Amino acid sequence: MRKQLQALRARMAEHKLQAYLIPTADPHGSEYAGAHFACREYVSGFTGSAGTLLVFPNWAGLWTDGRYFLQAEEQLQDSGIRLMKSGEPGVPTLEAFLKKSLQAEQTLGFDGRCVDARTGRRYHKLVKDLGARLNGQLDLVGEIWPDRPPRSAQPVWALAEEYAGVSRRDKLHQIREDMLGQKADLFLLTALEDIAWLLNLRGGDISSTPVFLAYLALGQESCTLFAQTACFPLELLDQLEADGVYLRPYEAFYDYANRISPEQRVLLDSRRVNTKLLTSIPSAVQVVDRPNPTLARKAEKNPVEQENARKAHLADGIALTRFMYWLKTQAGNLPLTERSAAARLEELRQADPLYLQPSFAPILAYGPHGAIVHYEATQESDAAITNEGFLLADTGGHYLTGTTDCTRTYALGSLTPAQKAHYTAVLRGNLNLAAARFKSGCTGRNLDYLARAPLWAMGLDYNHGTGHGVGQLLSVHEGPQTIRSRPLEAKEAPLVPGMITSDEPGLYLDGQYGIRLENLLLCVEAEVTDFGRFLAFETLTLTPFDLDAVDPALLTQEERDRLNAYHARVYTAIAPHLPPEEAQWLQTATAPL
Amino acid sequence: MRKQLQALRARMAEHKLQAYLIPTADPHGSEYAGAHFACREYVSGFTGSAGTLLVFPNWAGLWTDGRYFLQAEEQLQDSGIRLMKSGEPGVPTLEAFLKKSLQAEQTLGFDGRCVDARTGRRYHKLVKDLGARLNGQLDLVGEIWPDRPPRSAQPVWALAEEYAGVSRRDKLHQIREDMLGQKADLFLLTALEDIAWLLNLRGGDISSTPVFLAYLALGQESCTLFAQTACFPLELLDQLEADGVYLRPYEAFYDYANRISPEQRVLLDSRRVNTKLLTSIPSAVQVVDRPNPTLARKAEKNPVEQENARKAHLADGIALTRFMYWLKTQAGNLPLTERSAAARLEELRQADPLYLQPSFAPILAYGPHGAIVHYEATQESDAAITNEGFLLADTGGHYLTGTTDCTRTYALGSLTPAQKAHYTAVLRGNLNLAAARFKSGCTGRNLDYLARAPLWAMGLDYNHGTGHGVGQLLSVHEGPQTIRSRPLEAKEAPLVPGMITSDEPGLYLDGQYGIRLENLLLCVEAEVTDFGRFLAFETLTLTPFDLDAVDPALLTQEERDRLNAYHARVYTAIAPHLPPEEAQWLQTATAPL
Repeated sequence: MRKQLQALRARMAEHKLQAYLIPTADPHGSEYAGAHFACREYVSGFTGSAGTLLVFPNWAGLWTDGRYFLQAEEQLQDSGIRLMKSGEPGVPTLEAFLKKSLQAEQTLGFDGRCVDARTGRRYHKLVKDLGARLNGQLDLVGEIWPDRPPRSAQPVWALAEEYAGVSRRDKLHQIREDMLGQKADLFLLTALEDIAWLLNLRGGDISSTPVFLAYLALGQESCTLFAQTACFPLELLDQLEADGVYLRPYEAFYDYANRISPEQRVLLDSRRVNTKLLTSIPSAVQVVDRPNPTLARKAEKNPVEQENARKAHLADGIALTRFMYWLKTQAGNLPLTERSAAARLEELRQADPLYLQPSFAPILAYGPHGAIVHYEATQESDAAITNEGFLLADTGGHYLTGTTDCTRTYALGSLTPAQKAHYTAVLRGNLNLAAARFKSGCTGRNLDYLARAPLWAMGLDYNHGTGHGVGQLLSVHEGPQTIRSRPLEAKEAPLVPGMITSDEPGLYLDGQYGIRLENLLLCVEAEVTDFGRFLAFETLTLTPFDLDAVDPALLTQEERDRLNAYHARVYTAIAPHLPPEEAQWLQTATAPL
Repeated sequence: MRKQLQALRARMAEHKLQAYLIPTADPHGSEYAGAHFACREYVSGFTGSAGTLLVFPNWAGLWTDGRYFLQAEEQLQDSGIRLMKSGEPGVPTLEAFLKKSLQAEQTLGFDGRCVDARTGRRYHKLVKDLGARLNGQLDLVGEIWPDRPPRSAQPVWALAEEYAGVSRRDKLHQIREDMLGQKADLFLLTALEDIAWLLNLRGGDISSTPVFLAYLALGQESCTLFAQTACFPLELLDQLEADGVYLRPYEAFYDYANRISPEQRVLLDSRRVNTKLLTSIPSAVQVVDRPNPTLARKAEKNPVEQENARKAHLADGIALTRFMYWLKTQAGNLPLTERSAAARLEELRQADPLYLQPSFAPILAYGPHGAIVHYEATQESDAAITNEGFLLADTGGHYLTGTTDCTRTYALGSLTPAQKAHYTAVLRGNLNLAAARFKSGCTGRNLDYLARAPLWAMGLDYNHGTGHGVGQLLSVHEGPQTIRSRPLEAKEAPLVPGMITSDEPGLYLDGQYGIRLENLLLCVEAEVTDFGRFLAFETLTLTPFDLDAVDPALLTQEERDRLNAYHARVYTAIAPHLPPEEAQWLQTATAPL
């Protein structure tokens, strides 16, 4: 049995807890929780990105999903922790299990900072129905973790207005107007991307996401930023104060929330704030539970951001195209692996002076690895790349000018007719979605069919969404819009001009190969007529699809025209930035079919 | 001022009501309220199919929608009733108006049988918030209407199992199983189509809908039908009793509801039952508010119904095709009007021995009339049809074998290029939706884009849904599925094999012409693969599109193939049933492009 588990149980006994819950989350609902918040990993030894550990005095179980069954099984061996395979037949959900196992009068504990408020409410009800108790104030893992990594505290820096497009002062004004519309006196914001966007600040506290740990309390006259003060250069503090933004220590936020006066109407999004915050607010305070007004404003990129995004995609397109040339000419000649190829692409991106860092951990997946949707090459799995089959490369970068996310699947040798038919079907879905022209008010659900139709016609499909929103030098996965057959939330956000959304159909054949083709699409105005307002997409991503994988006979004339027009755009944009030999190769690689 | 309004106000004063509301509805939420329930028309003189009258002692207003502004303006002249144009800027909704106008301690009255339970609940809350009162028990119009038409009481007849496909006994068993799934002891059903479907009975109490006035109370051991007993032949009563269905008088239903014992769990759909029923049920009774289980079962036509529907559409296709021949050869020669043409089509339908009646009032709309979506020719509007422009014909029939609904738009003279471009865009939308192949679980919202895309690409659109469900010898408009960009209800019903749905894109140019092309589609299984279950549509409607209106240059090859394949099917099915001359004409009319 892991000694961390033993230590935790000793603390549970001291605190008179009969159950303790450790989710995988930071206090901000970030996509990636930092090392300081890796409590579940510390106690269980399981390193996957998703999972919840539930510990009783004489039983412990870890709930995780299908992506991690194999890995968790291995890592939990001899840990004294049972693997609970979420979604498998006969496996109860964590809440169903709790309902059966927790007794009246017993106490369930967790660190309320790492449980979102809606889930917290459900736990509250569950415990109440059982006649049991809840303690959401205890960070027990913090008590037993001697060498716990400190909270990340990277420098915070200002994003210049030439990149942000709108000044901090104007953004604060916009959001205060939104607050008036909701009759809210105070707006509590804990989502790190939204705080960074609102204040035109960036940092480095979350992996692949240039944001910084902070909470924000915005009133009509006041703006208090709770953050790690040491991370702010003095001149930045001056700039912030000039805009009416005052800094207080990160830890002081819950105390602040606790003292909110009952006359205030407080706006917050209970899907985003954690339960500790919600329970810290005095119960007399009126809470308006709505989506953060920053969410929609952040998603609709302003004209400067849009122009910058085009520049970021040009830079990224050059790197991706050079990578493609290198790969297509070198595979089979050079000793290559998934990781060495990723390093090469990173090097090519770094050639651009405005490039900052990858926007997510690169997925380079060769052959059968391509069929694992969330594959990430480790030292052990790192496959040698030769001159056959498919290489799937899903990568992206943060530039000062914007964020990219592109997937290409490359043919590294001759393909079978079935492989070409599969690639061509995915390509058709990608092109047809990008060519959509639609009425204002449409959501991603209205358009998802376009990406899937060629696959569905063949009895094929992919088991993930077609598109996600993309932040601007923030998170590469951003709401509120998505492109899915069935949306994750009941209320779908319409596609709005200025939004950037991915277009990424795929096909995954277990043990064989995976194909995914992803471009980013900017939603733009098309025309306004007597019949309404029509929108369309501008494709931002600029790098060829691999014509070696296309069966032209399977394209309709319309699709062929779309492919040729896209390739002509790619050639015109990218060729001038390539060495002559590569430019010449690009001409062939983008030649009209 | 109308004397009916004066009489109503006198009754209001007697009953101490300060406001009285008269909706357009029967107690069953039927699409068409019968003459007996035309209270709003009686008091206001306005004959449109939609509208609500609100009467105060010194003010009265009628809320109706854009379809009826002109007509209502005319009919309300000197009535003392103000026209309230729903949806126009500055016009409050009826509920907002009530909120402002009703005073504390005042009483709002209505006939609770004609207000659905959800709306009733909103009125209840509104009145409560104002400190006012509600009386939903008063049929005041009944008190002042000396020559009120009696309730329709047409004979009820049994639909043979060769048409229903499943016996009454088996249907009752299915629904009782569904009730067990909901832990319901009693199921109260007031929707006439559902009662008719469940009991394999038909009648003639609702215009264009062969159903009969009734309520139903179904238990595990009992089935009580509240209906007009005189409408039932004795041998039918015997058959019903043999299946455990016992008749009680129509009027006795509310009394029955009032005596439901508190131990019973009662299943009903508050969107379908009226508020009088809901308030009649003792408050101690537990109500399970869910969609009627009959709704889904009725929508998924059984194999016998599907085979019958094909036969009904063959018969209908023969009539429609003969009508097209007659029209295309006679327009300009014979003196024709919208109404005489409709009579001719009805005559052609009547040639089939299984034909019963139109499934809705035929829409034959010539030239500019075609742009009025809900046009119905009156004696005054009845336009002469000549040999130019478009004639839009949206008609349908009830056959013992099923129900049809078809729209064709015919070119009666040479068309302009713009007219052909418009017709071709609508046709492409129709064909492309019909060719959809989709994953099980998709709703109409996933597919709506297919029908609109060709129009949206031209900055055009139509302001109605793309498709509605169709009943089998019941209502031609049937839930739960629809095909729309944005569904009317939050929870959308997936398309399921056996459902019949219309596919009817259109285009309407005010003052010029309207184009609509409508086929009925049967949802069918396509294939089951490792990637899931895939569905498709079988087009039931069998009559040509008018090739004189098609610009072949605007069709993609795929669309051309779809059109040719459809026309080949039409020719093969219909030609053998036509006189030689018409068959020969059909060959040309369906010749491949």
